[in-house]
Amino acid sequence: MKVVVGSPGTVGGLLLRTGQCLFAASSIAFMVSASGFSSYTAFCYLVASMGLQTLWSLGLGCLDSYALRMKRNLHNPVLVSLFVVGDWVTATLSLAAACSSAGVTLLFSKDVGFCSLYPLLSCRKYEISIALAFITWLLIAVSSLFMFWLLASV
Amino acid sequence: MKVVVGSPGTVGGLLLRTGQCLFAASSIAFMVSASGFSSYTAFCYLVASMGLQTLWSLGLGCLDSYALRMKRNLHNPVLVSLFVVGDWVTATLSLAAACSSAGVTLLFSKDVGFCSLYPLLSCRKYEISIALAFITWLLIAVSSLFMFWLLASV
Repeated sequence: MKVVVGSPGTVGGLLLRTGQCLFAASSIAFMVSASGFSSYTAFCYLVASMGLQTLWSLGLGCLDSYALRMKRNLHNPVLVSLFVVGDWVTATLSLAAACSSAGVTLLFSKDVGFCSLYPLLSCRKYEISIALAFITWLLIAVSSLFMFWLLASV
Repeated sequence: MKVVVGSPGTVGGLLLRTGQCLFAASSIAFMVSASGFSSYTAFCYLVASMGLQTLWSLGLGCLDSYALRMKRNLHNPVLVSLFVVGDWVTATLSLAAACSSAGVTLLFSKDVGFCSLYPLLSCRKYEISIALAFITWLLIAVSSLFMFWLLASV
């Protein structure tokens, strides 16, 4: 198996995982601090999806730092297949969560104007949380592309 | 380049493209027949995204049938790279459109109960259109996975 930048057990891989963790955790923090987020299914789904993403990226980040410290090679086809499936599932769920929340926020701010009608609705926080979720998705998409490329080039 | 089932210029590839075209066109038909869909950004975006998907799949479907009839080989690295990029872009846009519309429909039917309050809102048609968009996304995801695998295994 070739060594690809950003693949498991490399510094690039560890940086990508750390970024995913930080952005997903910040997205959750902004969403749960927004008043009334729990009344909307899309926002609850965003929190759940970003929670899963944080756990997955944290786990793989720990594995990367272990492999870097112990100079272990993680480029085993079975292990990489597992990472590919996990990455694709979490990437799809993150994009789905970010998009469904974005659809609802756009409805509130533009289509029905709830954001200006009800100042108690924390539209700004919803928007920041969704932007962070999109950045998380971008980072996990990069990870999963590297991982799939690595698996396909065996 | 290996011949992978569902890759360009094969019967599997042509069937996948035909399916994508049909489901995307049906999704547009259900959405535009629903009253008041144009008042919501997410639904307009779904129509635009499914329109782009129909055009892309129709173009590649025509190319597949031409290659099958003329027994031409489309497994050229430059051509496959172009298909991979196009497939990934349209797949991401389709998933984003389906999810944002699903978020809004879920809000209408569950969170705020607009579907039961306003019988004029064609919630059933929105739901069918979104389900068709998700099927389109599944088919394009299968196509793009085959295509990426083909490119990576060069």
